[in-house]
Amino acid sequence: MNEFELIARYFTRPPAAGSLVVAGVGDDCALLDLGERQLAVTTDLLLEGRHFARGADPEALGHKVLAVNLSDLAAAGSTPRCFFLALALPAADADWLAAFSRGLLALADRHGCTLAGGDTTRAPLIDTRPGPLTVCITALGEVPRGAAHTRAGARSGDDLYVSGALGDAALALAMRAGTCALDFVDAAAVQARLDRPEPRVALGIALRGVATSCMDVSDGLLGDLAHICARSQVGAVVSWSTVPRSPALQRQPVEAQQRCALAGGDDYELLFTAAPAARRRVLAAAREAGVAVSRIGSMVDGHAVQVTDEHGRALATPFAAYDHFAPPPAP
Amino acid sequence: MNEFELIARYFTRPPAAGSLVVAGVGDDCALLDLGERQLAVTTDLLLEGRHFARGADPEALGHKVLAVNLSDLAAAGSTPRCFFLALALPAADADWLAAFSRGLLALADRHGCTLAGGDTTRAPLIDTRPGPLTVCITALGEVPRGAAHTRAGARSGDDLYVSGALGDAALALAMRAGTCALDFVDAAAVQARLDRPEPRVALGIALRGVATSCMDVSDGLLGDLAHICARSQVGAVVSWSTVPRSPALQRQPVEAQQRCALAGGDDYELLFTAAPAARRRVLAAAREAGVAVSRIGSMVDGHAVQVTDEHGRALATPFAAYDHFAPPPAP
Repeated sequence: MNEFELIARYFTRPPAAGSLVVAGVGDDCALLDLGERQLAVTTDLLLEGRHFARGADPEALGHKVLAVNLSDLAAAGSTPRCFFLALALPAADADWLAAFSRGLLALADRHGCTLAGGDTTRAPLIDTRPGPLTVCITALGEVPRGAAHTRAGARSGDDLYVSGALGDAALALAMRAGTCALDFVDAAAVQARLDRPEPRVALGIALRGVATSCMDVSDGLLGDLAHICARSQVGAVVSWSTVPRSPALQRQPVEAQQRCALAGGDDYELLFTAAPAARRRVLAAAREAGVAVSRIGSMVDGHAVQVTDEHGRALATPFAAYDHFAPPPAP
Repeated sequence: MNEFELIARYFTRPPAAGSLVVAGVGDDCALLDLGERQLAVTTDLLLEGRHFARGADPEALGHKVLAVNLSDLAAAGSTPRCFFLALALPAADADWLAAFSRGLLALADRHGCTLAGGDTTRAPLIDTRPGPLTVCITALGEVPRGAAHTRAGARSGDDLYVSGALGDAALALAMRAGTCALDFVDAAAVQARLDRPEPRVALGIALRGVATSCMDVSDGLLGDLAHICARSQVGAVVSWSTVPRSPALQRQPVEAQQRCALAGGDDYELLFTAAPAARRRVLAAAREAGVAVSRIGSMVDGHAVQVTDEHGRALATPFAAYDHFAPPPAP
């Protein structure tokens, strides 16, 4: 069983009577009903050695751990309100904490998102080595009743969109792993995308009442799109030539472009659907939010995700969503 | 700097304008204002090798990780509504997950608290050994506007109370560490208190409008009481002979009794204050909740916490709150 099947098997339950939960496990956020307003809530656990490298710059890390949560709130179309921070630290290092909190709170301040509480502990020793630096953030956003996006509303015939550009974070990771070479300017550009992703909060809000489904791309476009398809019970066709890629990524071999942009992960862009009649409103939302949006395909009957070349022929796409428990892919 | 000073220094900020946060860092729960209702929110990070032993029984662990959060919700006087679960697992072990979710969801069901979302990942390797099993839970409870308990409302002259009995969990830990011996019956009793604490949810709710301050005892009575004193700007005098101890603990030497009951931690009982005029209402709340409550002292002018013997003489109490970053105490 993979990660998603494990969660579904052991932890998916119907909400208890009288609970506030209208939508739970299976979306970027859970949705809590509090009368005229609803709360979107998300939680992310980030571990040194898995989600970020040992010795990662603490200020960038502070930014990123909150950014990935704000990206989930953006996917739900909610306005960030507050967050909770749980930290396990290998040591009580004041310099590290000062830089981490600087990066964290600068992003929080920009989005008016208050650090409301948390928990701090020391990472245990594994043999004689300290356990991994661990950060768990739970973030809450507010959304008017009924206005939240989920993954479940896409309809056959809807357009499929993605914000920004895809694949840069994966390219930066490949570069750091030494499997590709970039010039200085490209390297700086893609590393910024990996280390300091910009959550698409304004776009998520602007798409209220426009998008029929929405999620953030964190595990790779095709795998994440499969979640929208499964929840919405539709298929999707993605036109490869329209998938937005940065100049840096476009300078890479086409195979690397496809791997990074279709299955790279860590993009934190919004993937959403809207009716063809709403094209003008989608563009207006993108303009309002100051974020580029690309129409990359459409939703179709069925349940499969297909990628086509410029002649409409199916591309072979051996890329799946990132599964934390799967064996590593063959090189 | 200790854990509390680190948090205060780098992470305590006033709430952003328009945020929902009425009370943040420094109480068991943060309090969010949503019109006529308020939400109490708490987050706890629990790590194998620090908060629980490697190889801990997964069903008991599932119970405990939620119980410690429900205890925080109880301290605020809130009704548990839902929670979020983030897990880092050394492996995707279906048997372990089945038992863990059984313990977790049985307690959740008893309190009508819905698992609303979460995050699952694989613990990274530290050299060749898997990193620690890590559980982060964020729990949300509901409380009528203005009815939540905080640590800040105790007044000089108030009575000081604690629920249940203190020190059993610490005694169980000492037994497992081999520093004391218990007979079979006592061992079973104190281990149950350590492994399956019962959050005092009904008592917390029954004390709405009665308690002037409230928190849960998780780091040891005296250290936790010092938090009430600091937040309320009062002192406290605890009468040692009235501190409730189980029969098992009372069979231990008096020094062990004091260490366990005054500074043991992991008790998950409610520590609260109320006006002397409210004594009958406190007893009624305890009866309603089906939980014993003991009056163990009173709040006084000043800021010090003192423990007295049955003659009113000050006891030497070298016990402080558990500090995750402090050097281990001398044996």
